[in-house]
Amino acid sequence: MKIRRAQAADVESIVRMLAADQLGVGRESTTDLAPYLRAFELIEADPNQLLVVADADAEPVGTLQLTIIPGLARGGALRGQIEAVRVRPDHRGAGLGERLVRWAIAEARGRGCALVQLTSDVTRTGAHRFYQRLGFTASHTGFKLALPAELR
Amino acid sequence: MKIRRAQAADVESIVRMLAADQLGVGRESTTDLAPYLRAFELIEADPNQLLVVADADAEPVGTLQLTIIPGLARGGALRGQIEAVRVRPDHRGAGLGERLVRWAIAEARGRGCALVQLTSDVTRTGAHRFYQRLGFTASHTGFKLALPAELR
Repeated sequence: MKIRRAQAADVESIVRMLAADQLGVGRESTTDLAPYLRAFELIEADPNQLLVVADADAEPVGTLQLTIIPGLARGGALRGQIEAVRVRPDHRGAGLGERLVRWAIAEARGRGCALVQLTSDVTRTGAHRFYQRLGFTASHTGFKLALPAELR
Repeated sequence: MKIRRAQAADVESIVRMLAADQLGVGRESTTDLAPYLRAFELIEADPNQLLVVADADAEPVGTLQLTIIPGLARGGALRGQIEAVRVRPDHRGAGLGERLVRWAIAEARGRGCALVQLTSDVTRTGAHRFYQRLGFTASHTGFKLALPAELR
Protein backbone atom coordinates (compact mmCIF):
# COMPACT_ATOMS: atom_id res chain seq x y z
CA MET A 1 0.00 0.00 0.00
CA LYS A 2 1.49 3.28 -1.14
CA ILE A 3 1.01 6.74 0.37
CA ARG A 4 1.22 9.47 -2.26
CA ARG A 5 0.27 13.09 -2.88
CA ALA A 6 -3.40 13.40 -3.87
CA GLN A 7 -4.33 14.54 -7.37
CA ALA A 8 -7.49 16.25 -8.64
CA ALA A 9 -8.76 12.86 -9.84
CA ASP A 10 -8.70 11.64 -6.19
CA VAL A 11 -10.94 14.41 -4.85
CA GLU A 12 -14.19 12.48 -5.32
CA SER A 13 -12.80 9.44 -3.46
CA ILE A 14 -11.54 11.67 -0.64
CA VAL A 15 -14.90 13.44 -0.30
CA ARG A 16 -16.65 10.05 -0.19
CA MET A 17 -14.37 9.11 2.72
CA LEU A 18 -15.12 12.40 4.49
CA ALA A 19 -18.86 11.82 3.95
CA ALA A 20 -18.72 8.20 5.17
CA ASP A 21 -17.63 9.43 8.59
CA GLN A 22 -20.12 9.52 11.48
CA LEU A 23 -19.62 13.29 11.95
CA GLY A 24 -18.93 14.17 8.31
CA VAL A 25 -22.12 12.61 6.97
CA GLY A 26 -24.15 15.79 7.51
CA ARG A 27 -21.34 18.11 6.43
CA GLU A 28 -20.31 16.77 3.02
CA SER A 29 -22.06 16.19 -0.30
CA THR A 30 -20.74 14.47 -3.40
CA THR A 31 -23.52 15.77 -5.65
CA ASP A 32 -21.48 18.89 -6.49
CA LEU A 33 -17.71 18.46 -6.44
CA ALA A 34 -16.96 22.00 -7.64
CA PRO A 35 -16.31 23.54 -4.17
CA TYR A 36 -14.04 20.60 -3.28
CA LEU A 37 -12.09 20.97 -6.52
CA ARG A 38 -11.62 24.69 -5.82
CA ALA A 39 -10.36 23.83 -2.32
CA PHE A 40 -8.03 21.23 -3.83
CA GLU A 41 -6.48 23.92 -6.03
CA LEU A 42 -5.76 26.07 -2.94
CA ILE A 43 -4.14 23.08 -1.22
CA GLU A 44 -2.06 22.29 -4.31
CA ALA A 45 -0.90 25.91 -4.65
CA ASP A 46 0.34 26.10 -1.03
CA PRO A 47 3.74 24.48 -0.41
CA ASN A 48 2.85 24.16 3.30
CA GLN A 49 -0.10 21.85 2.55
CA LEU A 50 0.23 18.20 1.76
CA LEU A 51 -2.90 16.17 1.05
CA VAL A 52 -2.15 12.47 0.66
CA VAL A 53 -3.98 9.27 -0.11
CA ALA A 54 -3.16 5.61 0.48
CA ASP A 55 -4.14 3.31 -2.36
CA ALA A 56 -5.39 -0.27 -2.37
CA ASP A 57 -5.92 -1.86 -5.78
CA ALA A 58 -5.18 1.55 -7.39
CA GLU A 59 -8.00 3.22 -5.44
CA PRO A 60 -7.68 5.70 -2.52
CA VAL A 61 -8.83 4.02 0.71
CA GLY A 62 -7.17 6.35 3.22
CA THR A 63 -6.33 10.05 3.41
CA LEU A 64 -4.99 12.82 5.60
CA GLN A 65 -3.80 16.38 5.27
CA LEU A 66 -0.57 17.69 6.77
CA THR A 67 -0.09 21.44 7.21
CA ILE A 68 3.27 22.98 8.11
CA ILE A 69 2.84 26.08 10.30
CA PRO A 70 5.73 28.43 11.06
CA GLY A 71 5.52 30.37 14.34
CA LEU A 72 7.56 32.20 16.95
CA ALA A 73 6.52 30.07 19.95
CA ARG A 74 8.76 27.26 21.24
CA GLY A 75 11.94 28.85 19.97
CA GLY A 76 10.56 29.62 16.51
CA ALA A 77 9.46 26.04 15.96
CA LEU A 78 7.72 24.68 12.89
CA ARG A 79 4.58 22.67 13.66
CA GLY A 80 3.09 19.90 11.62
CA GLN A 81 -0.69 19.79 11.88
CA ILE A 82 -2.68 16.73 10.87
CA GLU A 83 -6.29 17.16 9.72
CA ALA A 84 -8.96 15.03 8.10
CA VAL A 85 -7.60 11.55 8.78
CA ARG A 86 -10.00 9.06 7.18
CA VAL A 87 -9.96 5.39 6.23
CA ARG A 88 -12.63 3.91 3.99
CA PRO A 89 -15.03 1.82 6.14
CA ASP A 90 -14.18 -1.45 4.36
CA HIS A 91 -10.45 -0.94 5.04
CA ARG A 92 -10.64 -0.15 8.76
CA GLY A 93 -9.01 -2.30 11.42
CA ALA A 94 -6.00 -3.17 9.26
CA GLY A 95 -3.56 -0.58 10.60
CA LEU A 96 -3.93 1.83 7.70
CA GLY A 97 -4.75 4.82 9.93
CA GLU A 98 -1.62 4.14 11.95
CA ARG A 99 0.49 3.90 8.78
CA LEU A 100 -0.92 7.23 7.56
CA VAL A 101 -0.30 9.04 10.85
CA ARG A 102 3.20 7.60 11.22
CA TRP A 103 3.90 8.71 7.66
CA ALA A 104 2.74 12.26 8.52
CA ILE A 105 4.92 12.32 11.66
CA ALA A 106 7.96 11.25 9.62
CA GLU A 107 7.19 13.82 6.93
CA ALA A 108 6.80 16.59 9.55
CA ARG A 109 10.11 15.55 11.12
CA GLY A 110 11.77 15.60 7.69
CA ARG A 111 10.54 19.13 7.18
CA GLY A 112 12.07 20.21 10.49
CA CYS A 113 8.96 20.35 12.67
CA ALA A 114 9.49 20.30 16.44
CA LEU A 115 5.90 19.31 17.14
CA VAL A 116 3.02 17.47 15.52
CA GLN A 117 -0.48 18.47 16.56
CA LEU A 118 -4.06 17.55 15.76
CA THR A 119 -7.49 17.78 17.28
CA SER A 120 -10.15 15.12 17.47
CA ASP A 121 -13.83 15.54 18.29
CA VAL A 122 -14.42 14.81 21.99
CA THR A 123 -16.86 12.04 21.04
CA ARG A 124 -14.20 10.06 19.12
CA THR A 125 -12.89 8.20 22.15
CA GLY A 126 -11.53 5.34 20.03
CA ALA A 127 -9.47 7.81 18.02
CA HIS A 128 -8.16 9.35 21.26
CA ARG A 129 -6.83 5.99 22.45
CA PHE A 130 -5.28 5.50 19.00
CA TYR A 131 -3.40 8.83 19.13
CA GLN A 132 -2.23 8.24 22.69
CA ARG A 133 -0.91 4.84 21.64
CA LEU A 134 1.12 6.63 18.94
CA GLY A 135 2.70 8.86 21.61
CA PHE A 136 0.45 11.93 21.45
CA THR A 137 -0.53 13.70 24.68
CA ALA A 138 -4.09 15.00 25.15
CA SER A 139 -2.77 18.26 26.59
CA HIS A 140 -5.17 20.73 24.99
CA THR A 141 -8.82 21.62 24.60
CA GLY A 142 -9.85 22.35 21.02
CA PHE A 143 -12.28 25.21 20.37
CA LYS A 144 -14.27 25.82 17.18
CA LEU A 145 -16.39 28.77 16.08
CA ALA A 146 -18.50 28.33 12.95
CA LEU A 147 -18.90 31.48 10.86
CA PRO A 148 -22.37 31.46 9.26
CA ALA A 149 -22.22 31.97 5.48
CA GLU A 150 -24.44 35.06 5.66
CA LEU A 151 -21.91 36.82 7.88
CA ARG A 152 -18.90 36.06 5.68
CA MET B 1 -4.98 50.86 20.48
CA LYS B 2 -4.14 49.66 17.00
CA ILE B 3 -3.78 46.10 15.74
CA ARG B 4 -1.24 45.83 12.93
CA ARG B 5 0.93 43.31 11.11
CA ALA B 6 4.11 42.57 13.09
CA GLN B 7 7.50 43.63 11.71
CA ALA B 8 10.95 42.18 12.38
CA ALA B 9 11.55 44.97 14.91
CA ASP B 10 8.61 43.61 16.97
CA VAL B 11 10.02 40.09 17.30
CA GLU B 12 11.85 40.75 20.57
CA SER B 13 8.72 42.23 22.19
CA ILE B 14 6.64 39.27 21.00
CA VAL B 15 9.15 36.73 22.34
CA ARG B 16 9.15 38.56 25.69
CA MET B 17 5.36 38.15 25.79
CA LEU B 18 5.65 34.44 24.92
CA ALA B 19 8.29 34.03 27.67
CA ALA B 20 6.20 35.92 30.27
CA ASP B 21 3.53 33.24 30.02
CA GLN B 22 3.19 30.60 32.75
CA LEU B 23 3.70 27.76 30.25
CA GLY B 24 6.05 29.61 27.91
CA VAL B 25 8.58 30.57 30.56
CA GLY B 26 10.51 27.32 30.18
CA ARG B 27 10.15 27.18 26.42
CA GLU B 28 11.42 30.58 25.25
CA SER B 29 14.67 32.52 25.58
CA THR B 30 15.42 36.09 24.58
CA THR B 31 19.20 35.68 24.85
CA ASP B 32 19.41 34.59 21.20
CA LEU B 33 16.79 36.04 18.88
CA ALA B 34 18.24 34.48 15.72
CA PRO B 35 15.90 31.42 15.61
CA TYR B 36 12.88 33.69 16.20
CA LEU B 37 13.97 36.04 13.40
CA ARG B 38 14.33 33.06 11.05
CA ALA B 39 10.84 31.92 12.02
CA PHE B 40 9.54 35.45 11.46
CA GLU B 41 10.89 35.36 7.89
CA LEU B 42 8.96 32.14 7.22
CA ILE B 43 5.78 33.72 8.60
CA GLU B 44 6.31 36.85 6.50
CA ALA B 45 6.93 34.84 3.32
CA ASP B 46 3.68 32.84 3.69
CA PRO B 47 0.52 34.67 2.57
CA ASN B 48 -1.57 32.33 4.76
CA GLN B 49 0.17 33.53 7.95
CA LEU B 50 -0.66 36.76 9.68
CA LEU B 51 1.25 37.68 12.85
CA VAL B 52 -0.13 40.81 14.48
CA VAL B 53 0.60 43.03 17.46
CA ALA B 54 -1.49 45.55 19.38
CA ASP B 55 0.40 48.68 20.41
CA ALA B 56 0.09 50.84 23.52
CA ASP B 57 2.30 53.93 23.57
CA ALA B 58 3.99 52.74 20.35
CA GLU B 59 5.01 49.44 21.99
CA PRO B 60 3.57 45.94 21.32
CA VAL B 61 1.56 44.78 24.34
CA GLY B 62 -0.53 42.06 22.70
CA THR B 63 -0.06 39.55 19.90
CA LEU B 64 -1.58 36.62 18.07
CA GLN B 65 -1.03 34.62 14.92
CA LEU B 66 -3.75 33.76 12.42
CA THR B 67 -3.19 30.93 9.93
CA ILE B 68 -5.52 30.32 6.99
CA ILE B 69 -5.79 26.61 6.18
CA PRO B 70 -7.47 25.34 3.01
CA GLY B 71 -8.99 21.87 3.18
CA LEU B 72 -11.55 19.56 1.59
CA ALA B 73 -13.61 18.91 4.75
CA ARG B 74 -16.85 20.82 5.42
CA GLY B 75 -17.54 21.46 1.76
CA GLY B 76 -14.01 22.61 0.96
CA ALA B 77 -14.03 25.20 3.74
CA LEU B 78 -11.19 27.54 4.64
CA ARG B 79 -10.31 27.51 8.34
CA GLY B 80 -8.80 30.32 10.33
CA GLN B 81 -6.56 29.05 13.10
CA ILE B 82 -5.51 31.24 16.00
CA GLU B 83 -2.22 30.52 17.80
CA ALA B 84 -0.02 32.23 20.36
CA VAL B 85 -2.48 34.75 21.83
CA ARG B 86 -0.59 36.76 24.44
CA VAL B 87 -1.11 40.02 26.33
CA ARG B 88 1.73 41.64 28.28
CA PRO B 89 1.16 41.05 32.02
CA ASP B 90 0.81 44.78 32.81
CA HIS B 91 -1.94 45.16 30.17
CA ARG B 92 -4.14 42.23 31.19
CA GLY B 93 -7.72 42.62 32.39
CA ALA B 94 -8.46 45.52 30.04
CA GLY B 95 -10.17 43.60 27.24
CA LEU B 96 -7.16 43.55 24.92
CA GLY B 97 -7.23 39.76 24.48
CA GLU B 98 -10.88 39.98 23.47
CA ARG B 99 -10.14 42.76 20.97
CA LEU B 100 -7.34 40.69 19.45
CA VAL B 101 -9.45 37.53 19.13
CA ARG B 102 -12.45 39.44 17.73
CA TRP B 103 -10.09 41.07 15.24
CA ALA B 104 -8.82 37.63 14.17
CA ILE B 105 -12.39 36.31 13.79
CA ALA B 106 -13.30 39.29 11.59
CA GLU B 107 -10.13 38.88 9.53
CA ALA B 108 -10.82 35.14 9.06
CA ARG B 109 -14.38 35.94 7.99
CA GLY B 110 -13.09 38.57 5.55
CA ARG B 111 -10.83 35.95 4.00
CA GLY B 112 -13.78 33.60 3.51
CA CYS B 113 -13.23 31.19 6.39
CA ALA B 114 -16.18 29.03 7.44
CA LEU B 115 -14.63 28.19 10.79
CA VAL B 116 -12.20 29.62 13.33
CA GLN B 117 -10.33 27.15 15.52
CA LEU B 118 -7.74 27.19 18.26
CA THR B 119 -6.48 25.01 21.06
CA SER B 120 -5.71 25.99 24.63
CA ASP B 121 -3.73 24.02 27.21
CA VAL B 122 -6.15 22.07 29.43
CA THR B 123 -4.76 23.88 32.48
CA ARG B 124 -5.79 27.34 31.17
CA THR B 125 -9.32 27.20 32.54
CA GLY B 126 -9.64 31.00 32.60
CA ALA B 127 -8.82 31.12 28.89
CA HIS B 128 -11.42 28.40 28.23
CA ARG B 129 -14.17 30.49 29.83
CA PHE B 130 -12.95 33.47 27.79
CA TYR B 131 -13.22 31.59 24.47
CA GLN B 132 -16.63 30.17 25.35
CA ARG B 133 -17.83 33.68 26.15
CA LEU B 134 -16.71 34.70 22.63
CA GLY B 135 -18.89 31.94 21.14
CA PHE B 136 -16.37 29.12 20.74
CA THR B 137 -17.40 25.53 21.52
CA ALA B 138 -15.00 23.21 23.35
CA SER B 139 -15.84 20.39 20.97
CA HIS B 140 -12.40 18.84 20.50
CA THR B 141 -9.47 17.30 22.31
CA GLY B 142 -6.09 18.67 21.23
CA PHE B 143 -3.17 16.25 20.92
CA LYS B 144 0.52 17.17 20.72
CA LEU B 145 3.57 15.07 19.96
CA ALA B 146 6.98 16.66 20.52
CA LEU B 147 9.68 15.58 18.07
CA PRO B 148 13.03 15.52 19.89
CA ALA B 149 15.70 17.53 18.05
CA GLU B 150 18.01 14.50 17.77
CA LEU B 151 15.37 12.65 15.77
CA ARG B 152 14.67 15.49 13.34
